Amino acid sequence: MNPQSEATAEGILYTDEYQLTMAQVYFRLGLHETPAQFDHFFRHYPDYGDHQAGYCINAGLEWLLDWMRQARVRPADLDHLRGQRDRAGRPIFDQPFLRWLGEYGNFDALSLAAIPEGRVVHPNEPLSVVRGPLAMAQILETALLNLLNYQTLIATKASRIHDVARGGTVLEFGMRRGHAQGVNAGGRAALIGGAHFSSNVGLSHVLGYPPKGTHAHSLVQAFMALGEGELGAFRAYAEVFPDDCLLLVDTISTLESGVPNAIRVFEELRAGGHVPVGIRLDSGDLAYLSIQAAKQLDAAGFENTSIVLSNNLDELIIWQIITQIQEEAPQYGVDADRLIKRLVYGVGTGLITSRGASALDGVYKLVAIQQRGAWLPAIKVSETPEKTLNPGHKRVWRLYDQRGKATTDLLGLSTETPDLMDPVVLHHPVNHTRYRNLRRADLSAVEPLLVDILVAGQLVYDLPDIEAMRAARLADLERLDPGVKRLVNPHIYHVSLSEQLWNLKQSLAQAAQQSRPGALAQDGHPAA
Amino acid sequence: MNPQSEATAEGILYTDEYQLTMAQVYFRLGLHETPAQFDHFFRHYPDYGDHQAGYCINAGLEWLLDWMRQARVRPADLDHLRGQRDRAGRPIFDQPFLRWLGEYGNFDALSLAAIPEGRVVHPNEPLSVVRGPLAMAQILETALLNLLNYQTLIATKASRIHDVARGGTVLEFGMRRGHAQGVNAGGRAALIGGAHFSSNVGLSHVLGYPPKGTHAHSLVQAFMALGEGELGAFRAYAEVFPDDCLLLVDTISTLESGVPNAIRVFEELRAGGHVPVGIRLDSGDLAYLSIQAAKQLDAAGFENTSIVLSNNLDELIIWQIITQIQEEAPQYGVDADRLIKRLVYGVGTGLITSRGASALDGVYKLVAIQQRGAWLPAIKVSETPEKTLNPGHKRVWRLYDQRGKATTDLLGLSTETPDLMDPVVLHHPVNHTRYRNLRRADLSAVEPLLVDILVAGQLVYDLPDIEAMRAARLADLERLDPGVKRLVNPHIYHVSLSEQLWNLKQSLAQAAQQSRPGALAQDGHPAA
Repeated sequence: MNPQSEATAEGILYTDEYQLTMAQVYFRLGLHETPAQFDHFFRHYPDYGDHQAGYCINAGLEWLLDWMRQARVRPADLDHLRGQRDRAGRPIFDQPFLRWLGEYGNFDALSLAAIPEGRVVHPNEPLSVVRGPLAMAQILETALLNLLNYQTLIATKASRIHDVARGGTVLEFGMRRGHAQGVNAGGRAALIGGAHFSSNVGLSHVLGYPPKGTHAHSLVQAFMALGEGELGAFRAYAEVFPDDCLLLVDTISTLESGVPNAIRVFEELRAGGHVPVGIRLDSGDLAYLSIQAAKQLDAAGFENTSIVLSNNLDELIIWQIITQIQEEAPQYGVDADRLIKRLVYGVGTGLITSRGASALDGVYKLVAIQQRGAWLPAIKVSETPEKTLNPGHKRVWRLYDQRGKATTDLLGLSTETPDLMDPVVLHHPVNHTRYRNLRRADLSAVEPLLVDILVAGQLVYDLPDIEAMRAARLADLERLDPGVKRLVNPHIYHVSLSEQLWNLKQSLAQAAQQSRPGALAQDGHPAA
Repeated sequence: MNPQSEATAEGILYTDEYQLTMAQVYFRLGLHETPAQFDHFFRHYPDYGDHQAGYCINAGLEWLLDWMRQARVRPADLDHLRGQRDRAGRPIFDQPFLRWLGEYGNFDALSLAAIPEGRVVHPNEPLSVVRGPLAMAQILETALLNLLNYQTLIATKASRIHDVARGGTVLEFGMRRGHAQGVNAGGRAALIGGAHFSSNVGLSHVLGYPPKGTHAHSLVQAFMALGEGELGAFRAYAEVFPDDCLLLVDTISTLESGVPNAIRVFEELRAGGHVPVGIRLDSGDLAYLSIQAAKQLDAAGFENTSIVLSNNLDELIIWQIITQIQEEAPQYGVDADRLIKRLVYGVGTGLITSRGASALDGVYKLVAIQQRGAWLPAIKVSETPEKTLNPGHKRVWRLYDQRGKATTDLLGLSTETPDLMDPVVLHHPVNHTRYRNLRRADLSAVEPLLVDILVAGQLVYDLPDIEAMRAARLADLERLDPGVKRLVNPHIYHVSLSEQLWNLKQSLAQAAQQSRPGALAQDGHPAA
């Protein structure tokens, strides 16, 4: 895209058409300024097929706020909308609406509460709550979902990879296979979720991290074609970066050419007073090759060099590699734990596209609307019971047991507080026969999760840096039951409804069902 | 991101760190201006798990050209690079290199040949060929892969969905679940590949298509909460958009509330002289519901209204829906073919994230480099034989049989031409025992696929609009064997090497193997 087009395609028109048609309906009926509330939540943890997440890491909020600040209707946007025609050839958007949109087409009147970035989150709880004039709160939907869903998906994947890497450094390497400019959001989310660094130069600069990377096969190929060979390429690289020398050793043959050549160059560096950094393996049986490479490096006195692994990694493959090293290393006289400690993981496609689950199913749903100053809860009754909305103004609390572990997240009405409940009644969100009671005395803490971010468009929140988000993530993971963090088949964390919220949901659902116009028999075929 | 950060993160520093460190090595050795050639190709068709692509649709080129034009080293970029430190605390990039980069850090000296957007392409053939000074051709790698791989992936998915929809309109609805700003690239690719329209307002304006969309559940919910009910919401919508009235009917109960209410409003519209557009189904058993909805609509005299289906669609689910309608519609007295003809498919997540295969494995490999005016082919020998490169300057021809069907794509050296070969010898790219001969007389046409796009930075190509790309796609699909287009388990299209290219590849691979420094026995464990 050229810059002019980009301003159009990433500004206020970065939205779905129906947000604008609905806004015009609201405008025509005088409902456009009616206060409304929308909740953003996801319904299911990412399911990667062979393995599943048991928690998510929230991310994306700061970039959403940046977008909201910049996305304001420009005259060019109004011109575009003025040009839209319906099937009868008449303008879709009328002048009064466009005049209003030109004047008020920004997000300055919205309030936003959210669970902070980096925190552990679960299905069906509001991650963000938007309150404000109906039309603009509606128009926000697309960008909000677009900017929050993806970052949460990737922060979650990164956290799983960080978990399984047992302290090993994780590098985000995904630019070449990610979804166009989305890789910048993905790289940021990876850093929040557990990647230590990224290869993405511009993004790393923007976020204040040093970008990581050394060289590709092409460097070795170029030297080979010019008659200098792999050794020549390694020597050239070491000469330019004597204190940052990490060599890719698999262009010809890892063990017969790459590692021996790297060792020769490392010896030359050592003779010159430099400390070589390590090698990278990018193909073949990474566990076997890293054992053999470690053996060669150790024999030459380079026990402290890193071994960077790349090529199609994700949490499952890293887990497999570590397991294989534990089994096989001893038979080659290599200490498995020492080897695992020196591993670094360059994770590309599997991380930036969240391999196995390329989308988070986050939605943004109207849950309340005001009439004559009073808030009315709104519901959508689905033919799939899990999809029936939790209506109204809600709060989310995390309840900690006496061990200090999170035991449940509780959704209640904003008029409630768990401090006053004893026992705390926890309703299953869908199944009315399932609930449990928690004695207040069994809880060590009750923590509200939603924080005010914007109040009538004003930022009332100190935006944390990525280090603070990482600290929040680690603190939350520490307080999460190990079963919930399991890579495969995790324990299901409970998200529950309070008794009052459960009752409200039931009564609204019944009222909605009763509003059906009549019993049209459907030949007995189940419609759900 | 704020706009200043975005300029950094989407400009010339939109690259992997190692491109810059390699560029500095080339600079130090005086190789930075050495002419080199890189090929962009993918190795495998997208494999969606249950189903696989048998062809891809090329896309992304024009936006790559836009990026290349805009991405030029700015003083701020040099400041960023100047600030990078190695492990010893010294600058990673030295002054002479940064001075050179400040002056020549753009893509104006590169030449580019490519297969045009919209065309059918296959694995292992160069989709783009970049030739020019080694350092800048190297730095281009990341952005080129980022901008071409994803669009090709999505154009391919869109083409499959278009194929299976049997002429039904396909709408791209994926913004909310796509990967942040990548959705604009994805939306464009979807339009090239077969989606008829997109809901993305800004992108549609930029590309000259009307954006599509009507209303969400929230409109109905708002009216319900305010006591107006679903019927009130439908009436309001119809009043504002009498000639563009498409109603979402599943907020309460599709068949008992939504469709009957829609029919009442359609009758009111008809009485006012308007033609209602249709309904949208977004949950439940879409095949069953569309049959029942059609029955109700037909009975009321609305046989020509559209039935838009959405909710988690992809090519496999659309295929299933159509199959189910063919089986079940007759038993309800509904004409299956007529119903299928009125279906419209809103495809979101499954299209924009290419469900099942979220990345194309496209790579960018050095295949030749100049020395003293002579081009030397470059190779990378992989421990996985399929990954051994096809070296040197190559051409790609598509060979058509006497029926006018594409029978093979042939890679040969640029000194060759199939017109002079009889028979044309087709080598399997990896297996030396597999080849076949084609008599020249059995071919109806030989078409070169690569087109010059940039010559020394100058655009020498008339960029087609998206309609022209779609026409190219349809023409190519017409000439593709039906087996290759099969949704599941497609026939494998042959991409072959000419005899001369095959011989060059073998001799280079052997020479590379012989350059190993010695026979280090590896305990008999297979390293591959």
